[in-house]
Amino acid sequence: MKAGVIGATGYAGAELVRLLSRHPKIDSLLLSSVSFEGEKIDEVYPNFQGRVDTALVGAEQVMSAADVVFAALPHGVGEQYAKTCVEKEIPFIDLSADFRFGDDEAAYSTWYGKPHQYPQLCKYAVYGLPELNRARIKELAASGKVIAGNPGCYPTGASLGVFPAIAKGLAEGGATIIVNAVSGVTGGGREPSRALHYAECADSVSAYKVGSHRHMPEIARNLAQMAARHNRPAPPVIFTPHLAPMNRGILSTIYIPIAAAWRGGKKDAAEICAVYDDFYRDEPFVRVLPRVTAATGRVRQSNYCDISVHLDHSGSTLIVCSAIDNMVKGAAGQAVQNMNVIFDYDETSGLEMIPALF
Amino acid sequence: MKAGVIGATGYAGAELVRLLSRHPKIDSLLLSSVSFEGEKIDEVYPNFQGRVDTALVGAEQVMSAADVVFAALPHGVGEQYAKTCVEKEIPFIDLSADFRFGDDEAAYSTWYGKPHQYPQLCKYAVYGLPELNRARIKELAASGKVIAGNPGCYPTGASLGVFPAIAKGLAEGGATIIVNAVSGVTGGGREPSRALHYAECADSVSAYKVGSHRHMPEIARNLAQMAARHNRPAPPVIFTPHLAPMNRGILSTIYIPIAAAWRGGKKDAAEICAVYDDFYRDEPFVRVLPRVTAATGRVRQSNYCDISVHLDHSGSTLIVCSAIDNMVKGAAGQAVQNMNVIFDYDETSGLEMIPALF
Amino acid sequence: MKAGVIGATGYAGAELVRLLSRHPKIDSLLLSSVSFEGEKIDEVYPNFQGRVDTALVGAEQVMSAADVVFAALPHGVGEQYAKTCVEKEIPFIDLSADFRFGDDEAAYSTWYGKPHQYPQLCKYAVYGLPELNRARIKELAASGKVIAGNPGCYPTGASLGVFPAIAKGLAEGGATIIVNAVSGVTGGGREPSRALHYAECADSVSAYKVGSHRHMPEIARNLAQMAARHNRPAPPVIFTPHLAPMNRGILSTIYIPIAAAWRGGKKDAAEICAVYDDFYRDEPFVRVLPRVTAATGRVRQSNYCDISVHLDHSGSTLIVCSAIDNMVKGAAGQAVQNMNVIFDYDETSGLEMIPALF
Amino acid sequence: MKAGVIGATGYAGAELVRLLSRHPKIDSLLLSSVSFEGEKIDEVYPNFQGRVDTALVGAEQVMSAADVVFAALPHGVGEQYAKTCVEKEIPFIDLSADFRFGDDEAAYSTWYGKPHQYPQLCKYAVYGLPELNRARIKELAASGKVIAGNPGCYPTGASLGVFPAIAKGLAEGGATIIVNAVSGVTGGGREPSRALHYAECADSVSAYKVGSHRHMPEIARNLAQMAARHNRPAPPVIFTPHLAPMNRGILSTIYIPIAAAWRGGKKDAAEICAVYDDFYRDEPFVRVLPRVTAATGRVRQSNYCDISVHLDHSGSTLIVCSAIDNMVKGAAGQAVQNMNVIFDYDETSGLEMIPALF
Repeated sequence: MKAGVIGATGYAGAELVRLLSRHPKIDSLLLSSVSFEGEKIDEVYPNFQGRVDTALVGAEQVMSAADVVFAALPHGVGEQYAKTCVEKEIPFIDLSADFRFGDDEAAYSTWYGKPHQYPQLCKYAVYGLPELNRARIKELAASGKVIAGNPGCYPTGASLGVFPAIAKGLAEGGATIIVNAVSGVTGGGREPSRALHYAECADSVSAYKVGSHRHMPEIARNLAQMAARHNRPAPPVIFTPHLAPMNRGILSTIYIPIAAAWRGGKKDAAEICAVYDDFYRDEPFVRVLPRVTAATGRVRQSNYCDISVHLDHSGSTLIVCSAIDNMVKGAAGQAVQNMNVIFDYDETSGLEMIPALF
Repeated sequence: MKAGVIGATGYAGAELVRLLSRHPKIDSLLLSSVSFEGEKIDEVYPNFQGRVDTALVGAEQVMSAADVVFAALPHGVGEQYAKTCVEKEIPFIDLSADFRFGDDEAAYSTWYGKPHQYPQLCKYAVYGLPELNRARIKELAASGKVIAGNPGCYPTGASLGVFPAIAKGLAEGGATIIVNAVSGVTGGGREPSRALHYAECADSVSAYKVGSHRHMPEIARNLAQMAARHNRPAPPVIFTPHLAPMNRGILSTIYIPIAAAWRGGKKDAAEICAVYDDFYRDEPFVRVLPRVTAATGRVRQSNYCDISVHLDHSGSTLIVCSAIDNMVKGAAGQAVQNMNVIFDYDETSGLEMIPALF
Repeated sequence: MKAGVIGATGYAGAELVRLLSRHPKIDSLLLSSVSFEGEKIDEVYPNFQGRVDTALVGAEQVMSAADVVFAALPHGVGEQYAKTCVEKEIPFIDLSADFRFGDDEAAYSTWYGKPHQYPQLCKYAVYGLPELNRARIKELAASGKVIAGNPGCYPTGASLGVFPAIAKGLAEGGATIIVNAVSGVTGGGREPSRALHYAECADSVSAYKVGSHRHMPEIARNLAQMAARHNRPAPPVIFTPHLAPMNRGILSTIYIPIAAAWRGGKKDAAEICAVYDDFYRDEPFVRVLPRVTAATGRVRQSNYCDISVHLDHSGSTLIVCSAIDNMVKGAAGQAVQNMNVIFDYDETSGLEMIPALF
Repeated sequence: MKAGVIGATGYAGAELVRLLSRHPKIDSLLLSSVSFEGEKIDEVYPNFQGRVDTALVGAEQVMSAADVVFAALPHGVGEQYAKTCVEKEIPFIDLSADFRFGDDEAAYSTWYGKPHQYPQLCKYAVYGLPELNRARIKELAASGKVIAGNPGCYPTGASLGVFPAIAKGLAEGGATIIVNAVSGVTGGGREPSRALHYAECADSVSAYKVGSHRHMPEIARNLAQMAARHNRPAPPVIFTPHLAPMNRGILSTIYIPIAAAWRGGKKDAAEICAVYDDFYRDEPFVRVLPRVTAATGRVRQSNYCDISVHLDHSGSTLIVCSAIDNMVKGAAGQAVQNMNVIFDYDETSGLEMIPALF
C-alpha cells in the first residue's frame, strides 16, 4: 500500500513519515511539502539518511497515487485535499482541526476564525479518537468516503483521562472539570519563534493562552459526547495549557469533583483505579497504572496514554494524571492508529514501540 | 553583624551563604555542617572559591558568636538550636517546617510524624511570611525572643497568589481552591536519589505525592488566616505538586471560583488585576504583571513573586499564575527578608537581585 | 530463541531488554537482577507495563535455559558467568570491560585494577566491534565457544571516526590523535550520585577524568590494531571525556594530523568524505554525512554511528565528528548487533530504528 | 554617571542593562533599540518590571547625554556611533567585532567581509581584554579618545586558558594549539532561528562552523601577541565550536603540546597549576582551581574565568579547561570591566556576583 503525507516536513508530518516508513502494510511513501518541494526528506531531516530518501513533490502528485492520504497542515488550508480524496474515495486523515467538529459549523468558525470552505464534507468526517469513535470510523471507512479528524494533542490526553469518570458515574454530574496540562515544546511546531527559542523556554515553566486555548471546546465536546451516551449532563471544562522545557510529552492533571455516592472515602483510589482499568480493558493504547504516577517520561516515543488515578486529601475530588507523547498518541501515532482502524489492520500495527526508558 | 547558618551545605543553606555573604549588614559568617565539618565551604561548593572560604564548624560554635542564626536542617532536628537561641535572645530563622504551625501541635504532629520536643518554644514562633505577618515578626523581634518559621516553597507562591482574592472578596466564600504547582528539582535538596537522578527527571514531567503533600495543610492554614482576618469562611484546598526538568522555580496555577458579585464578566481580568495590584502596592517583592503571564524564568535568581491573573472562558473561575524562585523567595531569600524585618533593615537589603534574563 | 540478560535492571541491561523484546528472533527473555530479584521488570521500569513483565530471577536460572546470554554488570564480577556459558557453549556477550582486552593481561589489570580471574577464557574472547572484528566473531561463534567483549561507549564512536583515516593513509603515521568527547549522562548508569544529580549536571558542561579515563587504552588499542593491519605505526591517543546536560548520545570531535600527501588543500573535505564513505560502504550502521555535521540528536535512539569530516582552516588537520547514541551503538544496540553476527542473522535485525527526530 | 547602551534589546545588550542598572557608579541609563524604539525595556523583558523601565530611544539621543556608550550591535553597523563618540570624547565600548582587530585591516575584512568604514578610528581602538591590555586601555582612556573592542566570547575563555602556557614557556614554541569549545545557546542571540529552536538543540550536542568560525583568527592573534611579548613563536590555532543544550557558559578544552623542558613528568600538573596560579595572582576575575575541574556551572552568572590544568596520560600535552559565562565574562560583564578600567573604578565594581550554585 502507498501512503501519502501532505505537509511532510513539519514536526507532525515528519514523525508520520518516520512511523509509516516502518509500518508493515506500507510499501512506499508519497510526500509533499510546499516549503521544500524538490528536495528529499532526508535533506530536510538528516536523521532519515540511509532510510528514507523520498522526494518531496506537490500535493496533487501525492493524491494521484496514494491509497491513504494524511494531511499535516495548518488549520484551514487542507479542505481542498479532503474534497479530492473523498471524491476519489481515498481515506483522508487530517491532523489539523478542520474536521474535528463534525457539522458543528458554529463551534469551528467561532474558534478557528472562519467557516468551512466545503461544509458538505462534514458528513464524511469523524473525530478520529478510536477510543471514542472506533465504530463510526469503521462505518465511514466501509462506505469508501471517510475523513478522520485526528484529535488535538491536549484533547487526546485530557479526554481519555476523564471518560471513565463520566461513563461510570464517578464524576458529579454537571460539575466543572479542570484540566491543567503541561506540554513539551514540539507541540508548537517547527517554525522558529521567540516563544520557542531555546533560551526563552529552557529553565522556565509558564502557562499560555489561559482561558482561551482552542483545545478547550474540543475537550468539552468530547466530554459532552461521552456524557450524552450515558445520559449524564455535560460538564463545564476549564483548560490551562503550560509549556515546560522538554521536547515531547503532555501531562494532564485533571480535577473531577466526585459524585456523592463515591465521595468521602466511600471508595478509595484503588477501587477507582479498578473502574478505570475495567473501562479500558480492551484498549491497546491506554494503560492504567496501579502503582505509580503517570509521567511523560514513561510514554516517551510510544503511542500509549498512561493514566493514574488519585484522590485529594478530603476525598471529594478525583485527581487523574494522564500522560501521552504529544507527537505520537497526540498526533502522528494516533493518525496511524486511525489508518489501522480504517483499513481493518491490527490496531497496533506499526505502533508497537515500547516507551523509551530515557 | 555576624550571621550564623546551621546546615550550610544543603542547597538552601548554601544559597543562604551566597546571599548573606553579599548582604551589606553582614560582616562575617559562621557556618556549620555535620557532613562536612572541618572543611571549608568553598571546598564543598567550588563556586565560592575566592569569595567565601569560611570553615565549617559545629552548631554550638555558630551559636556562640552569631547575632542571628539561620537553620537549614531537615524537619525535626533543629529545635534544640532554637531553644538555645531563644534563651540567648538571638533571632532564629528556621527553614524547616518545625515552627510553621505555631501552637497547632495537632497539625504539626499529624503531618510531620511527631510532636514538638520543646512545645513551649511555639509562643516565640511566627510564620515568617512577611506579606502576612510582618507586624507580628517585628513585635516578637522587639521582645528579643523570636523564631521565624520560614515558609515552605510551595505555600509561599500559592498563598501570595490567593490572598488578594480572599481579602477582597473575589473568591466565592468557602469554595474549594485548587493549587496545581510545578517545581524545579532543587526543591528536593542535594542528597542524590533515584527520583532526582538526571536521567530520571530530564525530559519528563510528573506529579508526586498527589493528595498527600505536607505543604497542603500549610497552604490551607495560610488561606484560613487571611479569610479569618476578613471574616470570610476558610476555603478547602487541593494541592498537587509536580516536578519539571529545570533547576529552579515554582509555578503555581491556581483555580479560584469567583464570588457571584464578580462572576460572568461583571468584572474583567484587567479589573481583577487592578485589585491584585492594589493589594500588593506596598510589597517590595510581589509584582502583579498586567500584560504577560507569570513564568518561572521571569523571577529566576530573584526574591520576587510574580503574579498574573486570568479568567476562565466562562468567567466563573479566576485563574492565577504565581511564579517564584523556589530557592530564593521560596527559601533562602525569604529567610534574609525575615532577617531584614527582624532587624528593621530595609526589607530589600541584600535582595536587590534583578531576575536573570536567562 | 531464548535470550538471557544478567544484570537486567541497570540502564544498559534495561535498554537491552527493550531491544530484545522486539527482536524478531527472540521468543522469550530470561532476566536476572541482584537488586530486584523477585520483582518483575515492569515494576522496576513502569515503561514496560503491558509489554514486558518478565520476573527477575537469579543468574544461574538465566544460564540454565538461555540460548544466548548478555551480561550488563560492573567490571570484574561477571567472569564466572562467562566461564559457565563457555563450558555450556552458550554465546556470551559481555557489556563490561572484562573481555575487551583479549589476552593483554597487563593492559586489563593496569586499568581495571586486578588480573582476570579466569585468564584461560581470553582465548574465546573477541572485542565485539563488528566493524573491526566481524570475521573473528563469526569464527569463534562457529567454534561454539564465544565471548564478545562489547566495546565501551566512547571507544565505539572514537574508533569508527578514526579507522578510515588510518586505513587509507590520511593520518600522518604515528602522530598524536586527540579525541575530545561529550557524553550524555546515562553513560554514568542508574546509581544515584552527586555528579549525576539533576541540579548538579543541568545547565553545565565539564570534563572529567582528564588524562586518566579507562577508555583511553581501549581506543589506543583499537587504533593500533587498525594501523597494524595496514602496516602503519600506532598513533598515540589523547582522550578527554566531558559530560553535557542531556540523557543520551556521545559526540566525539577528533583531531587527526594529516599525512603530507593529503595536506594543505591537496585534497579537500569532500574528497576525504568520499574516502570515508567508501570505507564504510558496506557497513549497515555507519553513515558518513556529506552535507551536515554529525550531531547526537541525529542518531538518537538508533544504532547508527554518524560521521562528518572537516578540515581545519590551515588544511593540516582532519577534524572528524562522530556521533552515536551511547546506550544503543554504545551499549545495548551493539550487543544485539554482536548477537546477530554470532547467530548469522541479518545484522540489522531488531535494530531497524530510525533516529528519533526529537 | 550616565551610561548609554545602543542595541539594548539583544541578549548582550539586555544583560548589560541588568549589570549597569546595579552598578554603584551609574546613576541612570540611556537605552536605544531599532526594533523596539518607543517601548520600555521592561515591556521587552518583563524580568525588569519594577526595576528598570527606561524608554528605548534612538542612538543619537543616547550619545547626546551619556558619559560612556556601549554598543551591542551586529558586526559592521556601529562604526558611525564610534566615530561620534570619539569626536565627543565619550568612551565607546563595542561588543561587536568591529574594533577587535586594531589596524589589521586585512584580518578584519577577510573574516568579516568588508573593510572598515572609518579606518582612521582604529588608532583609538584597543582590544578590550583587560588581562592582556589593561595598560593600553588606561592609556587611551587618559587621552580622552578610547574605543574598547570587547572580545568575543570564545576568544576570552580560550586566550585566558593559554596565556600562562605561552608566557611561562610551558607550551612548545610554535606547536599547534587546539581549542575545543562547547557553548550554551545564548551566544547565538535573541533572533529566532531553526538552529536555536528549542526542539532542535535540546538533547543534542553538535559542532558548527568547523574550521571556519570567525573567532579562530581572534584567538590566534591574541596568542601571537602574548608570544611576541615573550619572544616566542606564534602558535597555529585550531578552533572548533560546539553547541550544547544549556543557556549559558562556554567550556574550552585546550590541548597544548608541552615544551621539552616540562615534558614527560618532569613537572606534574600541580606544578603547572602553580605556574598558572602565579600568572593570574593579581587578576580579580581569573580563578585557577587546584582541586576540581573547571565547569560552566561553577562560573554561572559571574564574571569569572575558571581554569583547571591537567596532563594527558603520556605527559606530553597540557590539557587546560577554561570556563566562563558567555554572557558575562564573554560579553556584558567584560564590557563593564572595561568601563571600570577606563574610568579607573575598582575593576570589580558592579561585578561582584558570586557564581550561582544552580
